[in-house]
Amino acid sequence: MDPTPHLEWLADGDLLSVPGWRGAGIRTGVKESGAPDLALFQADSPRPAAAVFTRNELPAACVLLGREAMARRPELRTLCVNSGNANAMTGAQGRADAERIVELVERHAGGPALAVSTGIIGVPLPMGLVEPGIEEAARSLTAPCPQLADAILTTDTCRKTCAVEVELPAHGGQPARVVRVGGMAKGSGMIHPNMATMLAFVATDAPVEAGALDGLLRRATDASFHEISVDGDTSTNDTVVLLGGPSGAQDITGGDPRLPALEAAVTAVMQRLARAIVLDGEGRTRLMELRVTGAADTASARRVAESVARSSLVKTALAGGDPNWGRILAAAANAGVPLQGAAPSLEICGHRVFEDGAPTSYDRPAVDAAFSAEEVQVVLHLGLGHGAARRWTTDLTAEYVRLNAEYTT
Amino acid sequence: MDPTPHLEWLADGDLLSVPGWRGAGIRTGVKESGAPDLALFQADSPRPAAAVFTRNELPAACVLLGREAMARRPELRTLCVNSGNANAMTGAQGRADAERIVELVERHAGGPALAVSTGIIGVPLPMGLVEPGIEEAARSLTAPCPQLADAILTTDTCRKTCAVEVELPAHGGQPARVVRVGGMAKGSGMIHPNMATMLAFVATDAPVEAGALDGLLRRATDASFHEISVDGDTSTNDTVVLLGGPSGAQDITGGDPRLPALEAAVTAVMQRLARAIVLDGEGRTRLMELRVTGAADTASARRVAESVARSSLVKTALAGGDPNWGRILAAAANAGVPLQGAAPSLEICGHRVFEDGAPTSYDRPAVDAAFSAEEVQVVLHLGLGHGAARRWTTDLTAEYVRLNAEYTT
Repeated sequence: MDPTPHLEWLADGDLLSVPGWRGAGIRTGVKESGAPDLALFQADSPRPAAAVFTRNELPAACVLLGREAMARRPELRTLCVNSGNANAMTGAQGRADAERIVELVERHAGGPALAVSTGIIGVPLPMGLVEPGIEEAARSLTAPCPQLADAILTTDTCRKTCAVEVELPAHGGQPARVVRVGGMAKGSGMIHPNMATMLAFVATDAPVEAGALDGLLRRATDASFHEISVDGDTSTNDTVVLLGGPSGAQDITGGDPRLPALEAAVTAVMQRLARAIVLDGEGRTRLMELRVTGAADTASARRVAESVARSSLVKTALAGGDPNWGRILAAAANAGVPLQGAAPSLEICGHRVFEDGAPTSYDRPAVDAAFSAEEVQVVLHLGLGHGAARRWTTDLTAEYVRLNAEYTT
Repeated sequence: MDPTPHLEWLADGDLLSVPGWRGAGIRTGVKESGAPDLALFQADSPRPAAAVFTRNELPAACVLLGREAMARRPELRTLCVNSGNANAMTGAQGRADAERIVELVERHAGGPALAVSTGIIGVPLPMGLVEPGIEEAARSLTAPCPQLADAILTTDTCRKTCAVEVELPAHGGQPARVVRVGGMAKGSGMIHPNMATMLAFVATDAPVEAGALDGLLRRATDASFHEISVDGDTSTNDTVVLLGGPSGAQDITGGDPRLPALEAAVTAVMQRLARAIVLDGEGRTRLMELRVTGAADTASARRVAESVARSSLVKTALAGGDPNWGRILAAAANAGVPLQGAAPSLEICGHRVFEDGAPTSYDRPAVDAAFSAEEVQVVLHLGLGHGAARRWTTDLTAEYVRLNAEYTT
């Protein structure tokens, strides 16, 4: 194993901390609140790009177009995000509107372009507001631009950005070099692995060959955005994009000795953004880190972890600060994963509460106290094999219900 | 198709409306509230029996024992339910306690016996309270006995019973005959197909051969208890038992012309009990009947229906009386069921709101008004095949959260 490289986090870092990128975040009026609702960001030249899209079976037009564009050529220069309207479930008109946005972005700012929408489902995009907004944003590109990360938000209560520096080792005649990885994300509800109403954009100035970039994105997503769950719903518009540095003679490839340091930085940025999403989960008061170990395989571990992470009974117990481990085990056993021969043991905040099929004589007051903290750790060991998975999940509170019952989102 | 037979519902009918059955519902002190918590009911002779148990992978000891007993001999005379403690996740001691209960029931009341527990998980059964309770209950068997159905409840707010009469046609030298089907159920939370913290016991005085009884139970369960969802959690103790009449020379078999009328009655009783459970769903203010049609097959239709029925975003929209059909479609598309080539259309309370991949110009005030009723109907047609499924689901309210966050259940 490579030693973990030193990561230097930048104060107030974001995607525009990466050299070569500029952005704009403007108000078009699509959001009735008057908050910024159109983000445009651009590199000084086309960049290799990789993307992961929602697995929802009725994806928005922007996801369909994005998949097609990335399949044609994995390269992007300009990205546009409109928030407040997801342009999802909007039929042929929605597809035409999404194509028109890409066309306008390429005309006014330069392509290749990717356009992403997030917000309310099933309402036609007010193109009369969006079209002039694109023109205005294309004229306003700057760096830094804090409003950029604001303009991609919907029900979020805070901006989600970070950036890091890492040194890549010398290789192939190139000297050692410090590169940056920076990103921004949005997401607060409809959050579940594979994925959720979540968008994330991460850029680096490290030159990476397109195939290596794609593999890097998929591994880093598995270790970050696929580990969080707010409400078990996967949205129609989820998109994660990773953008490499300008191509040169010595781009990083799959087996490159510089890749591990870069991957550590990309993964760290994505994990920080994923954690910011779950911390901002709708109505959240507590956070549970759940690890499932000893499953028959990774897929089983993930299914068990997801069943626990989305259980309403586990999430309400978390809201109440109640270390109700029976609900955790019942939810784990409700994943459709065979547990015959399993010898489950369960640890809550470091206390072994269940072992050999029965409760231990654990220190109940200590567990009660530990579980009422804002962040709690749960480890479920199944004793079947070597499969492991981790999930971060929020509690289910009356405030979550209020937010989602009283507002159309 | 056979014409639907006439069903005559009995006022205040319950399982003991079926001739030959007596019961008792007593207080042992396991429930701190002092409510009845031990139910015993018995036929005047052993009866053919069929049972469906939870598919949870860590079932309670009573489920393991029940499966073994039914596999040995599908026949029961006495059933015992203790409420307030599920004796689940209690290891070897739990198994020994469950065996001891069966032994005591058979000794004091007569076997073959089945014992079922429901209530809190992970706490050893207070056998010092349960043991004398069994003796007391065995001495108190009567009919009618309204407390019987009370003694199986946990977080339920009301008793759930019903009974019906149906006429079976003449067959094989036997004249036409009126028989009864009666039952009781419990369940309020942890309710989801396959199944939930739910118990149901249904008896008939119609003589049915064991194999036919088993098939009848499985079909009727699919059309009733497997169609309801409160919170997506399946408990460790779920049990549905169907008890036939005293065996004779002319028991009803699989192809018997008397079976359809009996099946209609059993299904109607189970549907009424299932509906009573979902109506009593924890914190419920509204109820949604969801039908999925045109799926590729039945299994796909069920998965789509369950994904919608358990979506927190759909259930909170239902709580708010918000006909947020985008959330319904997004949840349907999040079932892991391929929808390529689907032409989904969606009807809310009789209004077609989505068709050909786009919203219709529906009457918004009318849909808003219709969706704010206590019961709403949603029909999702996928246009892929002939698979269909139905689910009844509750809304997700702040009261549900309060009930499950503030109390250990």
